[in-house]
Amino acid sequence: MKYSLKNDYSEIAHPLVLEAFAAVGSTQFDGYGLDDFTLGAADRVRAWVSAPAADVHFISGGTHANLTVISSALRPHEAVIAPETGHIFVHETGSIEATGHKICTVKGTNGKLNAAEIDAVVKEHGDEQMVKPRLVYVSLSAENGAVYTKSELTEISGYCRKNGLYLYLDGARLGAAINSNACDLTYADISGLVDAFYVGGTKNGALFGEAVVICTEGLKADFRFLMRQRGALMAKGAVIGVQFEALLKDGLYNELAKHSNAMALKMAEGIRKLGFDLLYPAETNLFIPVFPVKIARRLQELYWFYDWQNFGDTVAVRLVTSWATPESIVHEFLADLEKLKNEN
Amino acid sequence: MKYSLKNDYSEIAHPLVLEAFAAVGSTQFDGYGLDDFTLGAADRVRAWVSAPAADVHFISGGTHANLTVISSALRPHEAVIAPETGHIFVHETGSIEATGHKICTVKGTNGKLNAAEIDAVVKEHGDEQMVKPRLVYVSLSAENGAVYTKSELTEISGYCRKNGLYLYLDGARLGAAINSNACDLTYADISGLVDAFYVGGTKNGALFGEAVVICTEGLKADFRFLMRQRGALMAKGAVIGVQFEALLKDGLYNELAKHSNAMALKMAEGIRKLGFDLLYPAETNLFIPVFPVKIARRLQELYWFYDWQNFGDTVAVRLVTSWATPESIVHEFLADLEKLKNEN
Amino acid sequence: MKYSLKNDYSEIAHPLVLEAFAAVGSTQFDGYGLDDFTLGAADRVRAWVSAPAADVHFISGGTHANLTVISSALRPHEAVIAPETGHIFVHETGSIEATGHKICTVKGTNGKLNAAEIDAVVKEHGDEQMVKPRLVYVSLSAENGAVYTKSELTEISGYCRKNGLYLYLDGARLGAAINSNACDLTYADISGLVDAFYVGGTKNGALFGEAVVICTEGLKADFRFLMRQRGALMAKGAVIGVQFEALLKDGLYNELAKHSNAMALKMAEGIRKLGFDLLYPAETNLFIPVFPVKIARRLQELYWFYDWQNFGDTVAVRLVTSWATPESIVHEFLADLEKLKNEN
Amino acid sequence: MKYSLKNDYSEIAHPLVLEAFAAVGSTQFDGYGLDDFTLGAADRVRAWVSAPAADVHFISGGTHANLTVISSALRPHEAVIAPETGHIFVHETGSIEATGHKICTVKGTNGKLNAAEIDAVVKEHGDEQMVKPRLVYVSLSAENGAVYTKSELTEISGYCRKNGLYLYLDGARLGAAINSNACDLTYADISGLVDAFYVGGTKNGALFGEAVVICTEGLKADFRFLMRQRGALMAKGAVIGVQFEALLKDGLYNELAKHSNAMALKMAEGIRKLGFDLLYPAETNLFIPVFPVKIARRLQELYWFYDWQNFGDTVAVRLVTSWATPESIVHEFLADLEKLKNEN
Repeated sequence: MKYSLKNDYSEIAHPLVLEAFAAVGSTQFDGYGLDDFTLGAADRVRAWVSAPAADVHFISGGTHANLTVISSALRPHEAVIAPETGHIFVHETGSIEATGHKICTVKGTNGKLNAAEIDAVVKEHGDEQMVKPRLVYVSLSAENGAVYTKSELTEISGYCRKNGLYLYLDGARLGAAINSNACDLTYADISGLVDAFYVGGTKNGALFGEAVVICTEGLKADFRFLMRQRGALMAKGAVIGVQFEALLKDGLYNELAKHSNAMALKMAEGIRKLGFDLLYPAETNLFIPVFPVKIARRLQELYWFYDWQNFGDTVAVRLVTSWATPESIVHEFLADLEKLKNEN
Repeated sequence: MKYSLKNDYSEIAHPLVLEAFAAVGSTQFDGYGLDDFTLGAADRVRAWVSAPAADVHFISGGTHANLTVISSALRPHEAVIAPETGHIFVHETGSIEATGHKICTVKGTNGKLNAAEIDAVVKEHGDEQMVKPRLVYVSLSAENGAVYTKSELTEISGYCRKNGLYLYLDGARLGAAINSNACDLTYADISGLVDAFYVGGTKNGALFGEAVVICTEGLKADFRFLMRQRGALMAKGAVIGVQFEALLKDGLYNELAKHSNAMALKMAEGIRKLGFDLLYPAETNLFIPVFPVKIARRLQELYWFYDWQNFGDTVAVRLVTSWATPESIVHEFLADLEKLKNEN
Repeated sequence: MKYSLKNDYSEIAHPLVLEAFAAVGSTQFDGYGLDDFTLGAADRVRAWVSAPAADVHFISGGTHANLTVISSALRPHEAVIAPETGHIFVHETGSIEATGHKICTVKGTNGKLNAAEIDAVVKEHGDEQMVKPRLVYVSLSAENGAVYTKSELTEISGYCRKNGLYLYLDGARLGAAINSNACDLTYADISGLVDAFYVGGTKNGALFGEAVVICTEGLKADFRFLMRQRGALMAKGAVIGVQFEALLKDGLYNELAKHSNAMALKMAEGIRKLGFDLLYPAETNLFIPVFPVKIARRLQELYWFYDWQNFGDTVAVRLVTSWATPESIVHEFLADLEKLKNEN
Repeated sequence: MKYSLKNDYSEIAHPLVLEAFAAVGSTQFDGYGLDDFTLGAADRVRAWVSAPAADVHFISGGTHANLTVISSALRPHEAVIAPETGHIFVHETGSIEATGHKICTVKGTNGKLNAAEIDAVVKEHGDEQMVKPRLVYVSLSAENGAVYTKSELTEISGYCRKNGLYLYLDGARLGAAINSNACDLTYADISGLVDAFYVGGTKNGALFGEAVVICTEGLKADFRFLMRQRGALMAKGAVIGVQFEALLKDGLYNELAKHSNAMALKMAEGIRKLGFDLLYPAETNLFIPVFPVKIARRLQELYWFYDWQNFGDTVAVRLVTSWATPESIVHEFLADLEKLKNEN
C-alpha cells in the first residue's frame, strides 16, 4: 500500500472520538443540536476559545460552514474579499456565488491578505455599479500552510472594524496554526479579532465536523434558521457535539495538531538537509518542497501526494501530515528520497 | 429520565455501525467519496435497490439530500409539486425556495399525492406567467406514517413519465415503509418507478447519512459538482460509506426497520384496545393516536412526544418508535395509559 | 377589430407622456437615474404621496419592482405573507422564490388579507424548522379589483408594526384604488401605513414604469445597488422620470384613473341592470360579471377578455377598462350584451 | 451647460423613435410581447441579423438581458468565462453571481478574449472541486471601444463549439462595432458565430431596449419563462418592438452608429494631431486619449467625461460620442484642447 501524504483527512477518526460515540450508549438525546451533548460541547468550545458570549454551532464540513456563515452575513449586493488562493474562491465549486455573492480577490502574499490590499478593493468599489465589499475571508492556516502572525491579523482586524467589514476566519486547520511555532496567536486572540470563525475538526482527528464560533452580536440572530435552510442542521446534531467534547476536554485537539505539525517539520527539515528547497517556510502540517520532476515522479510511485505548481524541470509538491501520521513514515520517506537523490 | 417517543433519531447509532468505524483502523482512504469504502457501499446500495445502472451518492442528511437533488434537476423557472404536508414545504425552512424554486402544493389524501391532483396543478400552469411544474416530490413513508401502495406509486410514476415530470422520493423512512405490512412495494419497485430517491440512514440506525440513488440518466450528469457546491460532498466521504456497508451487508437495515415498526404496531394496537382512536391506520413506526387532552398532558409528563393536531377536548399526538426502542417501553407506556384512563 | 377589455396596458401611452419625451429635445442627462428629470420626478412623487422623507426610485415594471424591493428587505430565511390570489404568488413565475424566498399564503377574503390571517401564519411559524415571516404583501387595488378601506389597511399596518413585519403594497393599480368611491384611503395614508409601495404607471397611462416609494428608514440603504444587480436601474433612468413628471404635475394621473374607473362602473351598472350578477362589487377599473357560458362565448367573439372562473353553466369573466377606453365602447358593449341576452 | 461626453445614453431618443410611439395612436395591442408590433419587430431583427430561425426577445436594458440569458443557459455549478474588464464582471453589481454563477476571468488583450486564454481556464477546471466553465462572454464593441475581427471571433467560436461552451455576445454597442472600419464582421457573421447575443438599442438612439437574439436551439426553450421570472417581460412589450421597427426599417440603426463613430474618429484624429496619444486605436464611438493631468482637469471644467486610468502625470480619459453628438461639439472640443495645450 502506498502511504498517502495527500491530506489530513485520510484516516477515520481518533480512537477517543469513536469511544465517545460508544459511551453514549442508549442515552436518548434531543434533535437538531438542542441536546445536552451539543450544549455541553458548545460550552467547551466557548471556554476553549475564551469567548463566553459567543454563539457556537456545529456543522458537518468546512464548505458548508463557510457558505452558511457568509450567506447569513450578507445582503444580496454585498461581496466577499478573499485572496485569490482562498479555498472558497478556488476549490468550493462556486458555493459562495451559488448563494448569490461575488468574491473579490486580491493577490495576497504567500497566500495571505493584508490591510493595504483590502483597502485597495474597498476604494475601487465606489458606487452601485459595483458590488459592496462587506466581509473579509482569511484561512488559518492558509492553503499553502502559512500562518498569520498576531500583528498581521490584528492589522486586518483593525482595518475591518474601522471600515465596517466583517472578518471571517476559515479554521479548517486552526489547530495546526495555533500550535505552530511560527504563530503567536492564541485561540482567545482569534475570538477577539474576528467576527466569526470555525474550529476545524475534520482535519484534526474528528470523524467529521466543525465548530462555528460567532463572536459578533450582529451575526448571531437566527443563525439556526440559516443552518436549517442550507441543510446544515443535522437531525442528530449530538453526533458532532460528542466529538468536540472528546477532542477538547483534555486537550486532545492540541496534541493531535502538535503531532501533525511535528511530523511535517521533521520531514521538511530532512528534505532541506537533503538539499531541496521549500516554496514557503514550513510552518504547519502542510508544506511544499520543490523537487526535480524525475524525483517527484518516482516519489509518487511510493507515496500519494499532489503537485502544487510546475516549474519545468522542477515541480513543487504539497505534502500533508496528519494526527495519525506515524514517525516511521517520515523516516521512510526521507530514506526513499535520499536513495532517489543518489540515483539521479 | 422521561423516555422519548419524539422521533427515530434520538439514539446515537447501532453498535455494528460504530464497530465498523473502529474496524477501519488506520487504513487510509481517498477524500470526497472516491475511496474504496464509498465505492463498495455504492455497489452495495445498487444491489440493495436492484438498480445496477444507478448512480449512488452519500449525503449527510435528508434536507441536504433533498435540496441538492432538486436544485440539480431544475432550470430556474421550474417548480416542484408536493403535498402541503410535505417535509420540504413545511419543515425545511424554505430550503428549496432558497435554491430559487417554488413548491406548488396540493391537498393530498392522508399525506399522500395522487395523479389527479398532480394533473390539476399541471393543467393550471399554462404559460410563462406561472412557474412550470417539473418535479413531483413524495415521501415514503409519508410525514404521518402512511405508505404508498405499489398501485398508487405506479399511477403517479406513469403520470409523471407521460407528462415529462421527474418523480423524486424522499426516503428518510424508506426502511420503515418497505418493511411495513401495509406496503407492497420493494426497493426494486422504487428504483423502477422514480427518477431519484434516497435510502435514509439517519432515522434507521446510522450515526447519520443518506444514500441518494439516481436512476434516471438525465439526472446523473455532474451531480458531484452540485454536491460540492452545496457543501454536501464530505471530505471524509468514507464515513458514510462505512455505515451503509454495515447497515446493508447482512440485512441489518431491514431488521432495524422491522423492529421499529413492530414496536409501533404493538403500541398502536394496545392503544386501540384501550379504546382510543388513531387518526390514520398505523402502518409504520410513526402513528397518531387521539387522546383526551387531559390524558395526553399527563402522558407528556412521563414521555416526550409532540402534539400533531388539536381538536378541542381531544388532541392527536405523534408517537415514533425507533430501531432502539425496547419492548419494555411499549408495555410501560400502555400500562401508564391504562392507569391514566382509569383515573379519568 | 375586436376591442380589448383584457387589461389596462393595451394602449401605448397618454399623449402628454409622449409629448414630454419630445420636450426633452436634445437636452443631455446623467445616466442611471441621477439626472435632473429623475430627481425632479422623485420630488414630485414625494409631494404626491405626502412623504417628504421617503426615497423614490423608478423601475420599469411591477414584477421587477416587487422582486427588487422584497429581495432587498429580507434575509435568506425570511418569507413573505400574501393572499393566495396575490400577483407575486400566482402570476410572476416564481420571481420571489427565484430570489430565494418562500411565500406563505393565506386564503384572504375577496382577494384581501386581514390581520387575523397574518397572525395565524406568524403563530404557526415557531422555530428554525420553518421560514420566518417578515414581510406582508398586499395589492391595492387587489387582483379582483377590490380595494382596502382605511380601517382595513390600518389594522394590517398596526399588526405588522407590532410584530416586526414589513408591509409592502403593490400599487400596480394604485390610481384606480385611490380614486375609487369605495376607497377612503389617500396617497398620504398609504405612505403612513406601509413600509414601501409603488405608484403604478404602466397601467395608468405611462408608456411604462413604476415609482417605488420607500417610507421606512430601514429599507432605504443601498437600494440602488439592489436595483443595479437585478437589472432594474435603467441606463436612461430619465425616461421614467420624464413620464412621472408628466403624469403627476397637473393631476393627470388621477384624471386617468377616474376615467378608467368611471367607464368600468358604468359598464358594471349596465350589466347589472341587464340582470347579470357581479362576483364582487365593482369598485375600480376591473370587475367580474357572471354570464351564461353561451352569452360569454358570443361576447368573446366581439370583445377580448379573459375568463376568471367557471361555474358550469355560467362563467365569471374579467373586464378591465383603461385610461383610454372611450365611453362609446361602454355603450356598444352593453348594447351587444342586451342583444345577446334577448337572443338567448 | 457643459456638454457631456460621458456616454452614449445621455439623450432621450431619436425623433423617429418618438414619432413611432405617436403613430401607434389608440391602436390596442396584446400584453407581454405577444402583440403584432413585437412580432413584426422580431421578424425585422431576424432579417437584420440574417437569422431566420433565431428566437428574438426584447428586454429593457443590457444588464437585464445579460443576466436573463446567462442564468437561463447554465446549471447551478456552471460558470462564465469573461475578460476581467468585462461589463458583467466589473460594472453590473454582481448580477450574474446573484443568479448563482461564478465568473472566471482572464486578462484579455486590449479588453478582448482569445481562445488560448479560454482554453487555459477550461484546462485548470478539472473536477468537481471547481466550477465548470460553460459560457464565454464577449462584448462587441468591448468596454474600451475595441472591436473583434472576424478572424478573432471565428477562432473563439470554433474553440467554444469544439469544447461544449456557449458563446454569448453583449451587443450594447453592436451598431458601433459593425459599422466600424476596424471591424470586418457583419450582423450575419455574428448570428453564425455565437449562440446568443443582443442588438443594443439603449446606446444607439432608442428610448431604451435591447433585442436579444437566440441562435442556438438548446437555448430557446422556455426563455419567456425566464424573462417573466426576472421581471424582464414587460407588460407593454410592444413599447420596445415599436422602437426596433423604427430603428431597423430604413437602416436608421446603422446610420446612427456611423454618425456616432464618425464623430469619435474625427475627435480622436484631431486629438492625435494635437500631439496626444490614444491608449488604444480609436475604432468605434468610445476612445481613450491620454492627457497631462492638468489639461484633463481643465477640460473637465468644460466637458463631462470620466477618467479611465491614472498614470501619475498623465491620465487616460474615456470619451464617448453618440448618435446625437453634433459635429460642432467636435470642433469646439478640439479648439478648447488646442487652447489648453498652448497655455500649458
